[in-house]
Amino acid sequence: MLPKTMTVIEAREPGGPEVLVPAERPVPVPGPGEVLIDVKAAGINRPDVLQRQGLYPAPKGASDILGMEIAGKVVALGPSPGAARFREGDLVCALVTGGGYAEFCAAPEAVTLPVPQGLSLIEAAALPEAVFTVWHNVFERGALKPGDWLLVHGGASGIGTTAIQMAAALGAKVIVTVGSDEKAQACVRLGALRAVNYRAEDFVEAVRESTGGHGANVILDMVGGDYIERDLKAAALEGHIVQIAFLKGSKVDIDLMRLMLRRLTLTGSTLRVQSLEAKARMAKAIEERIWPLVVEGKFKPVIDSTFMLADAAKAHRRIDNPAHIGKIVLEVD
Amino acid sequence: MLPKTMTVIEAREPGGPEVLVPAERPVPVPGPGEVLIDVKAAGINRPDVLQRQGLYPAPKGASDILGMEIAGKVVALGPSPGAARFREGDLVCALVTGGGYAEFCAAPEAVTLPVPQGLSLIEAAALPEAVFTVWHNVFERGALKPGDWLLVHGGASGIGTTAIQMAAALGAKVIVTVGSDEKAQACVRLGALRAVNYRAEDFVEAVRESTGGHGANVILDMVGGDYIERDLKAAALEGHIVQIAFLKGSKVDIDLMRLMLRRLTLTGSTLRVQSLEAKARMAKAIEERIWPLVVEGKFKPVIDSTFMLADAAKAHRRIDNPAHIGKIVLEVD
Repeated sequence: MLPKTMTVIEAREPGGPEVLVPAERPVPVPGPGEVLIDVKAAGINRPDVLQRQGLYPAPKGASDILGMEIAGKVVALGPSPGAARFREGDLVCALVTGGGYAEFCAAPEAVTLPVPQGLSLIEAAALPEAVFTVWHNVFERGALKPGDWLLVHGGASGIGTTAIQMAAALGAKVIVTVGSDEKAQACVRLGALRAVNYRAEDFVEAVRESTGGHGANVILDMVGGDYIERDLKAAALEGHIVQIAFLKGSKVDIDLMRLMLRRLTLTGSTLRVQSLEAKARMAKAIEERIWPLVVEGKFKPVIDSTFMLADAAKAHRRIDNPAHIGKIVLEVD
Repeated sequence: MLPKTMTVIEAREPGGPEVLVPAERPVPVPGPGEVLIDVKAAGINRPDVLQRQGLYPAPKGASDILGMEIAGKVVALGPSPGAARFREGDLVCALVTGGGYAEFCAAPEAVTLPVPQGLSLIEAAALPEAVFTVWHNVFERGALKPGDWLLVHGGASGIGTTAIQMAAALGAKVIVTVGSDEKAQACVRLGALRAVNYRAEDFVEAVRESTGGHGANVILDMVGGDYIERDLKAAALEGHIVQIAFLKGSKVDIDLMRLMLRRLTLTGSTLRVQSLEAKARMAKAIEERIWPLVVEGKFKPVIDSTFMLADAAKAHRRIDNPAHIGKIVLEVD
């Protein structure tokens, strides 16, 4: 028997981590095509921080509760049509548009995947946002192929550690930028061929050197600002620069001459607003291409730290701490 | 019997149109895989102007003589392997890396196409540069599909008039920007659904209105400068902006936030430096997809004016005259 109400984390008002407080909400009722998940773990992502600060409102129709990825047990199925694949008791993880920092969360079955064999629920909750983001941006938009060079800025982040492992497992050569030698070592352990400490070294020169002048076929950039102009220099002929965030600002200068002469492509995306159809397509490809890598042990999410649901504020403080490496995950009782 | 020497047009030194003067050069000897063409007409293109000014040197291995597209009669074949398709006497047009302003020009057979039935050699010489450019940038890089909206800046230019007709014939809906009402009328006659006189109207608003808020799926931009920021506003979700020149400057400001939220792609190219393999692939697609449209009368190059080879300087003055509509072509005796 499901409870009527559940504990969630609300952002009381826009602000710092301290605005995240426990609250009571009704347990969601899964709609057609949805499953209800008894949440055991929820991943923390940078867009959650922006949403907490009031800078990134939830898309229309999404829960106002933070949290875009969860893992747990299926406890109810929505009415047909649609919810047919999973059964009560199945262990799953899901990409959701919100509502993850909660004891229960409804998720469309099309973006719900089985927990890969051998992973804990904590680890499984750390997969969806990063894996969908890397899949879509590096492989779909960036068209990374085996043998290509991938440059990842923010190599030690949740996205970065995921990109290194996915790309290396699929046969690409990975270079990352990071802000400390400790992070550099972590990235190399995960499969990066070179980790550039941007405080000590220019990444354009490092990429030129490592690739023998070829440049990076794909650049995954979450920094923006003056990195873009340098990305244009670090990119290979016909290279793709894919923007997924802009920690150093979104207004940038670029030189179209270079873009044209090198036939570069600059693109980017956000995941959350994309249609369920688009995400379902990604989910299918990910289950076919990436889940087997996880089962084979070629890719495992890097967990920086875990916090109890009630300590969501502490988890947000941790993601703002530049020392973190990998994903930060909430545990739910 | 071929003559030993021929008349060509040389750029005596970097400068204005007056530096273009007739000179004598040896008739080229076709290499393996090449045909020698007795040139009857040569198209004028904007990169020729930049080359004349000393701003766009010929790529390594290319002739220093201006001219990137020609039409005429095959008069000799290079040694095997390769030159096997055409025979002496065939009427052809070709995309070359240079050497077009001349009585004879050698061209790789892979980028030589038969003159489409019903076209004069003047018209055929006006095809290669614009058709390859539009094919590669609008259809390959931009991925324009039937039913899509295409926005073309410089609608009345050689590239613009070609893009309008090719896109309309392949089922896309075309909006152009132009600098006069006369040009606007010419573009509408060619198949543009709307021609925006940029002196009187904001193209962002015009695109929004014409597309019912959808935006342009593909934008072909030869203007650059502040147009880019406006292109980002005029583009549809998942739209492609493809840069092929920058009359208003190549250093531009863009907002990555918009690029990401709308999942836009900014890319561009130059044609001349691309590999023969790449151009051969384009040539094949063009002969299959575009040549039949020409034969069916759905697309015919717009000829602004013709000049005799010796009057190349006048032809260059004409391309700098903003009143020209369509292509300017040199006739060769």
